Amino acid sequence: MKNEISKRKIYDRQDAYAKITGKAKYIDDLKFPGMLYVQTVRIGAPHARILNIDSSEALKVKGVVGVYTAKDVPGVNQTPKDRPALAEKETKFAGDGVAIVVANTKVQAAKAAKLVKIEYEELPYVVNPEEALKEGAPILHGNSNFAASHKTVKGNLEKGFAEADVILEREFSTQRVMHSAIEPDGAIAIPEAKGVLIYCPGKGPFNIKRAVAAYCGFNENQVRVIQPTLGGVFGGKDSDINIIASRVTMAAMITGRPCKMVWNREEVLEEGTKRHPFKLKYKIGAKKDGYITAMEINGLVDVGAYITKSQATIWRATVEATGPYNVENLSTNIVGAFTNNTISDAVRGFGSPQVDFASESLMNELAKELGMDPLELRRINAFKEGSITATGQKLQSVNLMACLDKLEEEFPVHEKSGPAPKGKVRGRGISCIFRGEAMGAGFPVKDAAAVSFHVEKDGTIVVLSGITEQGQGGTNVVLQIISETLGVSIENMRISPLDTSYLPDSGATVGSRGTITSGNAALVAANDAKDRMSKVIAKKWGAKCEDLVFENDTIFTKDKSENISFKEAVTLCYKEIPGVYGYGWWSLPPVWWDFEKNCGETYASFNYGACGAEVEIDLITGKVDVINLVAIHDVGRIINEAEVKAQIAGGVSMALGFALTEEVTTKNGKLLTKNFDKYLLQTTADFYNLKTIPLEAKAGNNPLGVKGVSESSTATVSPAVLNAIENALGVRIRNLPADLESVFSAIEESQKLGYIQGGAINE
Amino acid sequence: MKNEISKRKIYDRQDAYAKITGKAKYIDDLKFPGMLYVQTVRIGAPHARILNIDSSEALKVKGVVGVYTAKDVPGVNQTPKDRPALAEKETKFAGDGVAIVVANTKVQAAKAAKLVKIEYEELPYVVNPEEALKEGAPILHGNSNFAASHKTVKGNLEKGFAEADVILEREFSTQRVMHSAIEPDGAIAIPEAKGVLIYCPGKGPFNIKRAVAAYCGFNENQVRVIQPTLGGVFGGKDSDINIIASRVTMAAMITGRPCKMVWNREEVLEEGTKRHPFKLKYKIGAKKDGYITAMEINGLVDVGAYITKSQATIWRATVEATGPYNVENLSTNIVGAFTNNTISDAVRGFGSPQVDFASESLMNELAKELGMDPLELRRINAFKEGSITATGQKLQSVNLMACLDKLEEEFPVHEKSGPAPKGKVRGRGISCIFRGEAMGAGFPVKDAAAVSFHVEKDGTIVVLSGITEQGQGGTNVVLQIISETLGVSIENMRISPLDTSYLPDSGATVGSRGTITSGNAALVAANDAKDRMSKVIAKKWGAKCEDLVFENDTIFTKDKSENISFKEAVTLCYKEIPGVYGYGWWSLPPVWWDFEKNCGETYASFNYGACGAEVEIDLITGKVDVINLVAIHDVGRIINEAEVKAQIAGGVSMALGFALTEEVTTKNGKLLTKNFDKYLLQTTADFYNLKTIPLEAKAGNNPLGVKGVSESSTATVSPAVLNAIENALGVRIRNLPADLESVFSAIEESQKLGYIQGGAINE
Repeated sequence: MKNEISKRKIYDRQDAYAKITGKAKYIDDLKFPGMLYVQTVRIGAPHARILNIDSSEALKVKGVVGVYTAKDVPGVNQTPKDRPALAEKETKFAGDGVAIVVANTKVQAAKAAKLVKIEYEELPYVVNPEEALKEGAPILHGNSNFAASHKTVKGNLEKGFAEADVILEREFSTQRVMHSAIEPDGAIAIPEAKGVLIYCPGKGPFNIKRAVAAYCGFNENQVRVIQPTLGGVFGGKDSDINIIASRVTMAAMITGRPCKMVWNREEVLEEGTKRHPFKLKYKIGAKKDGYITAMEINGLVDVGAYITKSQATIWRATVEATGPYNVENLSTNIVGAFTNNTISDAVRGFGSPQVDFASESLMNELAKELGMDPLELRRINAFKEGSITATGQKLQSVNLMACLDKLEEEFPVHEKSGPAPKGKVRGRGISCIFRGEAMGAGFPVKDAAAVSFHVEKDGTIVVLSGITEQGQGGTNVVLQIISETLGVSIENMRISPLDTSYLPDSGATVGSRGTITSGNAALVAANDAKDRMSKVIAKKWGAKCEDLVFENDTIFTKDKSENISFKEAVTLCYKEIPGVYGYGWWSLPPVWWDFEKNCGETYASFNYGACGAEVEIDLITGKVDVINLVAIHDVGRIINEAEVKAQIAGGVSMALGFALTEEVTTKNGKLLTKNFDKYLLQTTADFYNLKTIPLEAKAGNNPLGVKGVSESSTATVSPAVLNAIENALGVRIRNLPADLESVFSAIEESQKLGYIQGGAINE
Repeated sequence: MKNEISKRKIYDRQDAYAKITGKAKYIDDLKFPGMLYVQTVRIGAPHARILNIDSSEALKVKGVVGVYTAKDVPGVNQTPKDRPALAEKETKFAGDGVAIVVANTKVQAAKAAKLVKIEYEELPYVVNPEEALKEGAPILHGNSNFAASHKTVKGNLEKGFAEADVILEREFSTQRVMHSAIEPDGAIAIPEAKGVLIYCPGKGPFNIKRAVAAYCGFNENQVRVIQPTLGGVFGGKDSDINIIASRVTMAAMITGRPCKMVWNREEVLEEGTKRHPFKLKYKIGAKKDGYITAMEINGLVDVGAYITKSQATIWRATVEATGPYNVENLSTNIVGAFTNNTISDAVRGFGSPQVDFASESLMNELAKELGMDPLELRRINAFKEGSITATGQKLQSVNLMACLDKLEEEFPVHEKSGPAPKGKVRGRGISCIFRGEAMGAGFPVKDAAAVSFHVEKDGTIVVLSGITEQGQGGTNVVLQIISETLGVSIENMRISPLDTSYLPDSGATVGSRGTITSGNAALVAANDAKDRMSKVIAKKWGAKCEDLVFENDTIFTKDKSENISFKEAVTLCYKEIPGVYGYGWWSLPPVWWDFEKNCGETYASFNYGACGAEVEIDLITGKVDVINLVAIHDVGRIINEAEVKAQIAGGVSMALGFALTEEVTTKNGKLLTKNFDKYLLQTTADFYNLKTIPLEAKAGNNPLGVKGVSESSTATVSPAVLNAIENALGVRIRNLPADLESVFSAIEESQKLGYIQGGAINE
């Protein structure tokens, strides 16, 4: 890897041409001969007992082939976790699917779905997680609504607080937001002789394969998942697509025909998973000089109707809840409760944005209380190389201080925000984070990926990789690493579409694990091919393998006495060796974790980040404009600077929505947010001045020296923005989002306190 | 491989269920949204200069999208050999494609094709290869119609013949036959963002990829070929499918839409390739005691209009022309000539059936001349272990004598054929052969294949192999080897469809190379996985890897002190190692060949066979019934007895047609045979008593110890049957096929000679 030269090169992205020209085929573009359309039928009540399903009227609709219910699910209807393909005896949230209608056209299916008569009894429901855990609450699963919890204890809390000069207790909350991929979830199942072929744009095709196999009673090798072009993921297209894929597979198995279901936006909102709302209580003690003596953190998470991946989300939140600080005396306890709300599941960030919002808001509150510079307070307590975490993990490749130094360099941390235009005020805020890389402890398999490639006889290359291209440029990273290791132009390489019948299970493209796993696997594969070819070429020249240089589509000796084009070298190799290929597996270093004592290593490594935000607040409307934002992220080694900067920018945009505008609202367990008209996404128009800085510092735990940054970029922004709002108004907003109403209230309070002049009250 | 136990086990063939239930999708079953239909336009004259192509009327037909000619071919219109995708300046045989019509429906395309006005000038043509090589003959390519030749010389021919007590000179000829796959050739091309996806049932998808890339101006990695279910191959679906795939790709590139062309039977006959007709002159000298002292062989082959693979066919025929005998003084020279006939190319057997027919007929003639037992004559001259061939190759794993011994045991070689029913006569004949394995010398790349597989987390397996399933059971061989090596039930394994975007180029499924290449690659892959898993399991048990036994979906220690199910072992492995998989390449041992001196090793190894046939000839009609046939083949190690016997039976059936009934007839360069009504295939109804005997004797040149038998089984039958006819009638037929007319003439001659009584003349 000639990284220094290449990281700033602009590569033609493999997926770009098809996307830009409209040639890319998304799931809704695909159709197959004889294909049927599947529509889900829902009750719409937050909690209900199903008494009877009468499909007689629906079946009379022209073109309707069948109506199927939970009774028709061929396999295990509650797997791999607890979410059924179709609810059987009771629905646990308003979006729960109860039946599917299969018809020749989408219109027929939709028409008939309305005629399926579901007789049901509304059951008592609970939508508040505190209420859910109380005695006498309506129970969703088993004997209680307790869904999951993780706890971390270190030192002596009492002693820690006793040592403190200052103790703060604060409560924070975060709202329910959604992925907002422009492409909604969907799948097509095509029956095969002894299995099923599924087209669906999931971020984890191997997981979908496994889920559908379980739901539909197949062995894993009987389910083949092909991924069409993905129209956005943002942490979604996972549990929901499992459900959709299972429903269409079930329909395909019964009818013997291809079956398609693509949700509309309303369905994505109704039945789709969303980010976990958190309620967090922080108690922090610190010395006058800023050293944190103790932290007590209690969290309550709204898991929604089914557990799906909530355990893992809560685990991550627990691990990261302190922020990136040495805390000698600590207790963190985050509990998840079932409610009759929409399901909480993976969203880009996966538990980090919630706790980082709270802990980093708290740090500024503490700094204010201590009269300290917020950056200095962070520096004092920051994790450094060799720091020991709450669970006893010794940290390596800790680049937090470098991020903070860079922040100080790039953002006027210590200066007052300049004068604002009339009727507006300005403020600045900062934040920093640490975030565990990839899947972490507690997963039953190695966190691994494979990459392989075949060199065609004309010297061009076909690459196979199990990491999905969901817009992040992940496939180009793989191509680039092979390209640079073998000195082959990326134009001569092509990546094959993701198809689980051919590619080794490389896990899902989640947890910011793409580059670290598949990037290193690509390096192993590229070196495998390089070694293989070198032996042939070196032998021909009487040279040593290590003296060969692969560059510019040519292979030559270091002393340039010999050279051969890559293409000719391939021809030569095919005469001498059976195949010209590279094959590589790579897995993250193992972590040890003691499940009984709840201690050990949580993630193989962590990455770090810092953020500075400057806001301008309209005192009339309460509108917050982020006029400057600097996002600094410890990315290990930069593979492709343009791509990683773009990835950070995307994370920032998502996080700005989380901070300021996005919220899926509900009332009595029913969604009020039905489409984007009531759900305000940030767009490029909302950006004023954004600086994304990937901070290079080679990570020690993998040959490539990379870290994953996708999700970190969603975690630093909201506290920086909220700290900036506080800086501008002198009033703290502790409940996200800081929307117009919330900011307007803060403005009013600020005015009451005399902190600011102008604004609505004074007009 | 627990071969002794398993070879007789009947495995459920992976392809059987879909084929039997009608779920299998053949090329003509496939359609895609917006698909267009492509029809070829031909002139129909054996040799013509194209003056002008007027498509104006054709373009007026409703639904016609375009008419395209050689000018529209995007790449090199004469590659990889000399056959153009569409003829440009002149057509060289009646079937040559000149233009394609692309339309919304097949009917529209066919209608418009008739309206394409091709102005052309008929050119002088030549259809007889002797005439073709004469001065003044119409020339097809370059300066002469000389297409290819191979020559083998050994010893001193003059001296050899001088030493002979008996010299025979005989001439033989073989006819033009076709593959007769029930499914005709076809392809669908779907344009992709930066390349093309082709569905076509070729036997060599990787070769098709390469051919289309060249024709259409792509890099190899831009062409993806997916193989649907194959409806028969028999050596075809190669050059013709390259042409079809190129035409539809060209249409797809121009129109931007999926394009399909499936030939009808008439087109398969008109434009499709066929088996090379041979004319062979043999001169043989032998001592009274039977020892052959010299052979002079001259052959002339009708290559047809383009060279395609004729060089390789002629090479193989030259190498094998003597039959499996030690000949100290030898000259073999086989020449191929271009004619304006339909193209000769690969057909199962590939040059062997023609020379074996001649040489093995000759051996019986010699035996008769010498008054010797034909079997004894063969034994005296037969290749034995360590024999040196004409090109100087020392033979190993020579199982010819074992075949002859087995023949003597299984077939009443020395007994007179029993009394025939009234009006019929009976006779017996034998033959034997040797045949080079796989691709042989002269190919620019290693004769290699790769097999890999992934073990799913539930312990089921997905296998990748580049060898096509064309009915021979080739994929099951691969599954079986992995199944037996890992002790995993074959029911838990599945093979992925052949797709060149995922599988390593394992060459074409030709040359009887399937089992030897992919079988050994499967063994390498299976042992790779076994080693990988053994390390984990042995470590857990504190055992040695070599003490582990993989059997019955279980792994246990030799002493049975420990055991674990394969599934649980897989779960354990996924915790400890990055992936559970097997990856294996295997290539045939290298052969050395001196292209200047025309000597060395021709094939890495040879297989052997013997055949005994008993015929009953109806003296009224001339109809020959083969009432008993024993086919013995040296197959190395038997992997699957039922499959190999079935494969031999299929070869016998094809060879019986070659011997007795099949012939594509032409007149003045135009085909008279237009469909199966005038082309008599052998069917199961034509079999009386067939015994197929795979003779097991481990081959030494590969770990699995196998040999390929597909084509050998097509080579022994015709001489045995013709020798039997001679035995019955006392008259020799030297020109194939021995059809009703030919046999009837022989009966008449036999009667004239007084050799037989009864029959037409005497009635």
